[in-house]
Amino acid sequence: MSLDSSGTVGDAGEFAVVDAVTSRFVQGDHVSVGPGDDAAVVAVQGGVVIASLDLLIQNRHFRLDWSSADDIGHKAAAENLSDINAMGGRPTALLVGLGAPAELSTAWALQFADGLAAEASAVGASVIGGDLTQADLVTIAVTALGICEHGIVRRSGAQPGDIVALAGRQGWAAAGFAVLARGFRSPRAVVDAHRQPHPPYGAGPQAAQLGATAMIDVSDGLLQDLGHIATASSVAIDVRSDTLEVAEPLRAVGAALGVEPLSFVLTGGDDYCLAATFPAGTSLPDDWREIGTVAEAGEPGSVTVDGAVPEQTAGHQHFR
Amino acid sequence: MSLDSSGTVGDAGEFAVVDAVTSRFVQGDHVSVGPGDDAAVVAVQGGVVIASLDLLIQNRHFRLDWSSADDIGHKAAAENLSDINAMGGRPTALLVGLGAPAELSTAWALQFADGLAAEASAVGASVIGGDLTQADLVTIAVTALGICEHGIVRRSGAQPGDIVALAGRQGWAAAGFAVLARGFRSPRAVVDAHRQPHPPYGAGPQAAQLGATAMIDVSDGLLQDLGHIATASSVAIDVRSDTLEVAEPLRAVGAALGVEPLSFVLTGGDDYCLAATFPAGTSLPDDWREIGTVAEAGEPGSVTVDGAVPEQTAGHQHFR
Repeated sequence: MSLDSSGTVGDAGEFAVVDAVTSRFVQGDHVSVGPGDDAAVVAVQGGVVIASLDLLIQNRHFRLDWSSADDIGHKAAAENLSDINAMGGRPTALLVGLGAPAELSTAWALQFADGLAAEASAVGASVIGGDLTQADLVTIAVTALGICEHGIVRRSGAQPGDIVALAGRQGWAAAGFAVLARGFRSPRAVVDAHRQPHPPYGAGPQAAQLGATAMIDVSDGLLQDLGHIATASSVAIDVRSDTLEVAEPLRAVGAALGVEPLSFVLTGGDDYCLAATFPAGTSLPDDWREIGTVAEAGEPGSVTVDGAVPEQTAGHQHFR
Repeated sequence: MSLDSSGTVGDAGEFAVVDAVTSRFVQGDHVSVGPGDDAAVVAVQGGVVIASLDLLIQNRHFRLDWSSADDIGHKAAAENLSDINAMGGRPTALLVGLGAPAELSTAWALQFADGLAAEASAVGASVIGGDLTQADLVTIAVTALGICEHGIVRRSGAQPGDIVALAGRQGWAAAGFAVLARGFRSPRAVVDAHRQPHPPYGAGPQAAQLGATAMIDVSDGLLQDLGHIATASSVAIDVRSDTLEVAEPLRAVGAALGVEPLSFVLTGGDDYCLAATFPAGTSLPDDWREIGTVAEAGEPGSVTVDGAVPEQTAGHQHFR
């Protein structure tokens, strides 16, 4: 591209940056109109489209000194692709809005675009369009679109007696956040997990195929997000703490910071693992591990750990 | 709702505001999963979905002292619904992200939601989901989804000899902006046009049915947006100035401010009218008026007015 990647977005101007960015977005065969028109057009199956939108703002959702542009691109994409995964769908496309300070380097914008496109293409999705505008802080809006191959799994279908299961790792990003917030950069494994989540793509459609009754992606904290299933389904959920994996890097961070490492698993967000409920007796594949049950009795909407109300349940909530 | 509408978004907290806002969004029959899950699910037709995303930021795209929350909701929706219109599609759904300062009143958030929902429902679209997060400035991301009933019209199909036509009013919002920027609040007709555009919904699918070869919505300026068609189609476009309607309120503003009123029509944005090209001889219905031709010769990508390069062509470009 003719764009000067040593310059700023403000120097290059909207159209030059848009051209340079969109030229990096490879379009899949399912895209009939990609970036550059008033809107994009993408194929869907089964007569429905699954759609989700998230807004991410500098210093609230990410920090430019903690994460590279590539990391932020990966994470912005992953967070939204995960929402499609959590419905049991397969993501096919992303739309991306970028609000950029004029002094942002074009190199940052291009690396952000590359991160976004790489995360999308790893699941077969294309970045089909978006918007670029000026903003005081880096502001990112992402819409993910997806198709439904095995039925939609909502939050509201959990039944008493169901088993509760988890796919993907949980607590890693929170441990990474904890060390970054204290000015450290290691253990690298958890810092990397904060910078780039690895949602268990594919486990969502798999759960749909297995007959999952409810599902959610854990973005704000395991107990809080299980609470969303419990509330939407009017059931009580009990988690067995001995089933939760507290990996070695989480124990190392807990020991170094004087924090109970299980708390990362119970209340940490940003890993985008999946929590789902399945009918009792469902034979779970290796990607899913049982972590609790939907109680036969109990306060609807409640989540307990080993039968007791946990001391700390709250995950992330904005304005709090 | 139990939400205290005399309080602030920060006092109420994310979940209470989301509940109150989403309860106001009536879901059409085509929506199988609306707000409140990880993603929404909406019906589409013909195996494709049309999708567009825009990002709007306080003090750049709107001002809280110039426009009400209801106005801003209408405009944020209209701008995106217009993108679907400009592809020849029919909008079916909006997703909305709102970044809100903690001190924003809940009344503002609810009125914004009402404006958004009213604009959407006027075209049969539902607000199916979104995101709420904290931000220093009011930040709005909207994704519009639509279906294609009469074929997609891109920017790139204009042919030499085609006629160029316009649907909807053009220049009004720019005249409104000009008076607001000088501290005035009248003529009311143009100020209102700035606050709430009235895109010619339906004219897009109509153009598709009539065999339009290229189409765009005029968001940044007529000459600039016709330039996008000229560039994408590798043709030269000539506009005949005597065909352009310069309505009385625009002439009044021009006289009051010492501005040539035709300049509002040629370079003003934000009315979201449609510009399209049609094969020569197409019989245009009343909604469309001929304003020029695709030249048989001429510099590809160029737009002239009455055969001459206009003095002022530039419309809006971010970072400029």
